[in-house]
Amino acid sequence: MNLDRYSPQNLRRPSSGMINVHPIQRGGILTEEARQVILEWADGYSVCDLCLEGRVDLVKNPPIAEFKRDVAEFLNMDEVRFTAGARHAKFVIMSAFKEKTIVVDSLAHYTSYIAAELNDMKVYEVPNSGYPEFKIEPEKYAETFERVKEETGKYPDLALLTHVDYRYGNLADAKEVGKICREYGIPLILNTAYSSGVMEVDGKKLNADFIVASGHKSWAATAPIGILATNYDFVDDVFRTSKTRGEWSGRAFTKKEVALFGCSPVYGLPIITLMASFPAVVRRIKKWEEEVAKARWFVKEMEKIEGVQLIGERPKNHTLMQFESPAFHSIAKRHKKRGFFLYHELKKRGIVGVQPGMTKNFKINVYGLSWEEVEKVAEAFKDIAESYGLEVED
Amino acid sequence: MNLDRYSPQNLRRPSSGMINVHPIQRGGILTEEARQVILEWADGYSVCDLCLEGRVDLVKNPPIAEFKRDVAEFLNMDEVRFTAGARHAKFVIMSAFKEKTIVVDSLAHYTSYIAAELNDMKVYEVPNSGYPEFKIEPEKYAETFERVKEETGKYPDLALLTHVDYRYGNLADAKEVGKICREYGIPLILNTAYSSGVMEVDGKKLNADFIVASGHKSWAATAPIGILATNYDFVDDVFRTSKTRGEWSGRAFTKKEVALFGCSPVYGLPIITLMASFPAVVRRIKKWEEEVAKARWFVKEMEKIEGVQLIGERPKNHTLMQFESPAFHSIAKRHKKRGFFLYHELKKRGIVGVQPGMTKNFKINVYGLSWEEVEKVAEAFKDIAESYGLEVED
Repeated sequence: MNLDRYSPQNLRRPSSGMINVHPIQRGGILTEEARQVILEWADGYSVCDLCLEGRVDLVKNPPIAEFKRDVAEFLNMDEVRFTAGARHAKFVIMSAFKEKTIVVDSLAHYTSYIAAELNDMKVYEVPNSGYPEFKIEPEKYAETFERVKEETGKYPDLALLTHVDYRYGNLADAKEVGKICREYGIPLILNTAYSSGVMEVDGKKLNADFIVASGHKSWAATAPIGILATNYDFVDDVFRTSKTRGEWSGRAFTKKEVALFGCSPVYGLPIITLMASFPAVVRRIKKWEEEVAKARWFVKEMEKIEGVQLIGERPKNHTLMQFESPAFHSIAKRHKKRGFFLYHELKKRGIVGVQPGMTKNFKINVYGLSWEEVEKVAEAFKDIAESYGLEVED
Repeated sequence: MNLDRYSPQNLRRPSSGMINVHPIQRGGILTEEARQVILEWADGYSVCDLCLEGRVDLVKNPPIAEFKRDVAEFLNMDEVRFTAGARHAKFVIMSAFKEKTIVVDSLAHYTSYIAAELNDMKVYEVPNSGYPEFKIEPEKYAETFERVKEETGKYPDLALLTHVDYRYGNLADAKEVGKICREYGIPLILNTAYSSGVMEVDGKKLNADFIVASGHKSWAATAPIGILATNYDFVDDVFRTSKTRGEWSGRAFTKKEVALFGCSPVYGLPIITLMASFPAVVRRIKKWEEEVAKARWFVKEMEKIEGVQLIGERPKNHTLMQFESPAFHSIAKRHKKRGFFLYHELKKRGIVGVQPGMTKNFKINVYGLSWEEVEKVAEAFKDIAESYGLEVED
């Protein structure tokens, strides 16, 4: 074993000191406040120093029990738990719907499908509008519910909507989908991995029965931490406690929540950084319009480059975006680095996060970049384009 | 919402600067090497900067794919995955044995029972020898297998042994249990949450089919991270990949491992700190005998106090221990702080980790304390005892 490869000198982060436009990285960059507490709480189970009740969400010092209530208030939902990522949160919900039928939007993250698969659920998809906008129209939920009824004899048991999808960064009309689900009496999971924590999400206003969020994606926390918020109706089923009793010992664990693995594995840095960043998160969602303005400006600049075009909804309502760029793709075909040329050219200019190898389509997230940084990224693309002979409008 | 309670000044760790003898904290204290890399990798999904294959265990920079092989070699097993804690690892294994029958030792951690419950398994228990040693005798596994056969008509499908239990810190005879399981053809999960990472664990030598480990408990990593190691026989079932196909979109996720939520949620600090601490972990397990010597010395000193007695196996083979102390309990009964007096007296002396409120029985882990620190802890207990009029031998 070559252990030297794990020495601190050899474990440098490749993106250090650069502007990182990776779609999954922008909302997870720690706040200064989280950085201030991180070393003190870095050891393994640190927040369990004074655990008296055997569950991390009940710990009083640090104030996790109070924090749980504040997060519920922030999302305007009744009850909250923390999970090992949004993927775990979705698994937890669906574990109360084993072998049943779920309808998901066709832009859903793969972890939504996997959570359903792990719970042996049957999955139906809500179509999207296809190229170039790929929109999810709310009424398609009603159509899909009817289709499920036709095919299986009954309406689905659960629905899921991806509030902002990871492919195009489209913002779905959650309120309207929620209204349709209420009409059908079908509980709705709203996956806010790319929305809550960066923009306002009000569960009651959006008619959501479950809100799933990602701390490391959008709440400036270390990985992994998800948030599962729900309303009183579902607390008993989804946060069900253990009914096991040791057949020889008689042991029982009646406070432990089964689908959360008893006590959810967020003890230590995930929950402490989520907590330390929370005041900044509460503040930053109020600046969302400015973030969208930067995104729209960036799209305008990028589309000045020959053959670069935004796909997904227009105008942008989110900071995550996908471009198609046949002109860059043509360059890649004749470049000795092939598709990797774009990644290397950007890196030379201090920018990382565009997937190495991608040129035909690529994704970018400008969330939290300063105007200067957004300009720098746009300039880098234009400069690369020009250096390879593409036209760039003034 | 009082957001001020989450400010860095208000989020101080209660154990800061003290000797922490909490049973779950000792093996998870970060190494200096992990502390050196932590700020650089603290942001959310940091290790995914250069993810090309869509699964964290396949990332080449940082060298997670190689690390996975090194951990397999270290545990002498064939294949390894990282999980959201040992509890998730047990869930992953058992998800390949849904609704089947499992035999667990009666000292198993609650998360072993919960993982079984979540997979609708029927659980049988291997009795322990009861007070005062609470030992798990290997032949009891054979007896329990036969009992299951009698009661259900067939042998169990899976067995689990807790290598070192969290209650008494007993070291079970894993090799012998493994031999019995092999004879019966029943796959064995060895839960090494308190052993691998602090002492040598050789999966092949111990006849284990699965090894579960806890990074935040015993490998000096930030929470949550578990390790699931297995042999080729079980790879396809336990690390099974997604077979879902979107019924409208045709989308498929064939590389994603279902029970690991597709891509295991350890991206970021958990995997990077596990990696950064690994060279020190490989070195420290060679000093295990010295750690046990400290534990045995500590027991000898503690038992000089009137009415304090080790329970669990004797002599100690591990650094986690439980004492019963009727004399401290008598003091608590007449103390104005009741059972909390011991916690407060220890804290005054710079020691935390004994559960607040406990005096009749309490647990301590001396792993990784220097001899001076172990002495300081023993002296503190003696000093408290004497100050309340208990006899202490010279």
